[in-house]
Amino acid sequence: MKAFKNVNLVTCDSDFHVYREGLLVIEGGRIVYCGGYKPDWEAKCQDVVDYEGAWLMPGLVNCHTHSAMTGLRGIRDDSNLHEWLEDYIWPAESQFTPEMTTKAVKFALAEMLQSGTTTFNDMYNPNGVEISQIYQAVKESGMRCYFSPTLFSSEKETAQETLARTRSIIEAILSYQDDRFRVMVAPHSPYTCDRDLLKGSGDLARELGLKLHIHVAETEEENRIVLETQGKRPLAFLKDLGYLDQPAIFAHGVEFTERDIAVLADSQVSIAHNPISNLKLASGVAPVVDLIAAGISVGLATDSVASNNNLDMFEEGRTAALLQKMRSRDATSFTLEQALKAMTIEGAKALDMADQIGSLEQGKQADFLVIQPRGRLHLYPLENMLSHLLYAAKGSDVKDVYIAGRQLVKDGQVLTVDVEHLL
Amino acid sequence: MKAFKNVNLVTCDSDFHVYREGLLVIEGGRIVYCGGYKPDWEAKCQDVVDYEGAWLMPGLVNCHTHSAMTGLRGIRDDSNLHEWLEDYIWPAESQFTPEMTTKAVKFALAEMLQSGTTTFNDMYNPNGVEISQIYQAVKESGMRCYFSPTLFSSEKETAQETLARTRSIIEAILSYQDDRFRVMVAPHSPYTCDRDLLKGSGDLARELGLKLHIHVAETEEENRIVLETQGKRPLAFLKDLGYLDQPAIFAHGVEFTERDIAVLADSQVSIAHNPISNLKLASGVAPVVDLIAAGISVGLATDSVASNNNLDMFEEGRTAALLQKMRSRDATSFTLEQALKAMTIEGAKALDMADQIGSLEQGKQADFLVIQPRGRLHLYPLENMLSHLLYAAKGSDVKDVYIAGRQLVKDGQVLTVDVEHLL
Repeated sequence: MKAFKNVNLVTCDSDFHVYREGLLVIEGGRIVYCGGYKPDWEAKCQDVVDYEGAWLMPGLVNCHTHSAMTGLRGIRDDSNLHEWLEDYIWPAESQFTPEMTTKAVKFALAEMLQSGTTTFNDMYNPNGVEISQIYQAVKESGMRCYFSPTLFSSEKETAQETLARTRSIIEAILSYQDDRFRVMVAPHSPYTCDRDLLKGSGDLARELGLKLHIHVAETEEENRIVLETQGKRPLAFLKDLGYLDQPAIFAHGVEFTERDIAVLADSQVSIAHNPISNLKLASGVAPVVDLIAAGISVGLATDSVASNNNLDMFEEGRTAALLQKMRSRDATSFTLEQALKAMTIEGAKALDMADQIGSLEQGKQADFLVIQPRGRLHLYPLENMLSHLLYAAKGSDVKDVYIAGRQLVKDGQVLTVDVEHLL
Repeated sequence: MKAFKNVNLVTCDSDFHVYREGLLVIEGGRIVYCGGYKPDWEAKCQDVVDYEGAWLMPGLVNCHTHSAMTGLRGIRDDSNLHEWLEDYIWPAESQFTPEMTTKAVKFALAEMLQSGTTTFNDMYNPNGVEISQIYQAVKESGMRCYFSPTLFSSEKETAQETLARTRSIIEAILSYQDDRFRVMVAPHSPYTCDRDLLKGSGDLARELGLKLHIHVAETEEENRIVLETQGKRPLAFLKDLGYLDQPAIFAHGVEFTERDIAVLADSQVSIAHNPISNLKLASGVAPVVDLIAAGISVGLATDSVASNNNLDMFEEGRTAALLQKMRSRDATSFTLEQALKAMTIEGAKALDMADQIGSLEQGKQADFLVIQPRGRLHLYPLENMLSHLLYAAKGSDVKDVYIAGRQLVKDGQVLTVDVEHLL
């Protein structure tokens, strides 16, 4: 057993327990004790780390990103979504070689780990890259993820061909039988996939017992396109295809109406909220407070760095809280407790992983980050820890990161990705 | 003369010149050359710093803050402005001792410098603190500022008494004859100062040739209060008092209407935009794009850490750009060039200091910050520097800071404030 003592624990459990002079004990990658300091527990441990008053919280969960796009950071800013995708992002992506894709993923793994993210939900353009290469990179990094190949309709392939190609990638992923490298079925969106491809994706997910991952209701323009081509708004169209009757995570949801929210409340759908990307592409602000009030699980996400432009989940948490206050014209909306949970346990719920991660509780995986606030001016006065974790901290404040009890980041340096080589 | 070579210069001048293999030469605290590399210039310098491809831009200008409130970071979040001020902030401030105030100011000086801010516009509650103590702290730090005592109406003093007390502080500041320690006349707001105090403040500013600094149009609630007590909306009320006919900087302006903007366009008023504070207190989003289109000078600001909760102007610049895109539902609004200028030269204009600071140009003060992007994952690919400076960088990326050619921050450590002692 290993103990971490002299820590302030922010558990993000259902009662939002905080232990000011806490002790965390782990064994076999899992938490065996999390609470106030107990000398008995410390005495049982072969290895004791004294964290000297540091802050310790669950690893952050990024519910929607595209790690292979890391090389596209800053290629095009100040551009609206549809022009941006069609004229800049997709043409650039089509030039990716498998080596570039693998390198970009490694880059993203390092950037996420360094800023405290331990689990992510990826949607990537397969584009000829070998999934085994990606798997190798993720496995080496030690991170947890869903890594799902995106399905698009194109003139080059029929829906059946795209589905068959995707199935083979998914089957390869399933064959690894690695709980840290999971997969969903990820049709890109209701405006880039035709009816057959969407229907086939839903069927494939059901057949393999997987969750769907899809962009939905991101912009007004999407509403217009889907209404024109399918005769219905995006959510109604997906409902017809059965998407609300199976496990799914919808990224964005900016354009959800009150009626949409009522429909979603009766579904198995969770939402990945991408506040910064939605602002940057001028999509808008998702009705997060209303979604949560309706009992829908909402996790936070960065989207890709091409529309963010970094993978810092602390910025996402803070921005989400700030925007919901603005949207509801009420500063008491979306409290810091809600935001810290959205960065952790609510994200875990949205990814169906809350039994394993997202909070510091006995029996859960020992995935956590450590911030040592001493000497960091913007984290003073030290006693207001909870406030600072949401409203003042940055990814660059993260000192150490552990996944399943193994240290992957030490003093801000990533131990498991060869960053020097990438740069 | 001293040269900084091997730098990428982002000048923020009127043509937004960027020099990829640039050279900056300074002498006597001022810039004597800023442009592409010239061996002749380097040869003339006794001292040459090789910055190995770093990024160099003007020091950031924070147009509205309350540095003495640094100790209040995180005391109360998720609270609306008027309740927050009356029930938490003002009672806490009234407990400040002079020692606490001076310490908080020093803390803010260090935090601002460390994150690249070189000039700030402060409004502080005098509360018995000796201005000589504050002056000593600012002078030692090397920063530039306006440090203006706030005027409030209270039952303890008549308007004449408040004005006389404030005048003596202002006269002390003027007696220092230090161009880096300036002052404005700072009545708190149209809802906390009565008509006599506002009128007297305007007169005092005119008499002493000073600018006014005041909170205006921050919230709907302010509109309601001023309408009830004065029979007019805040801007019309201040217009009656002559505030639009003399130099002034208005903080916030969230509630400005189209008609207000037209009125402001004919005034000498500049605006300090506080995007994060305005979100956090659920005030709203100021119509910055419209203000700029009307020719009004808009600088960026953090407000105090009690409603932010840090003094990182990079966050402010990014948030301003993101919010204006959302507000106008157009991602091409408020481009990165506009935002980088708002963080620097437009702030300098708003403070009437653009002849001295805000851009890297021959003859101006050598106030600048340096970021070394190598090894900082979120600043790659390196070639997209401009994008990263706005959309990916953080205050924590700042390596070095200079004011008037003197180095005040080195490798992220503040050289001129005894941070260890403060902590």
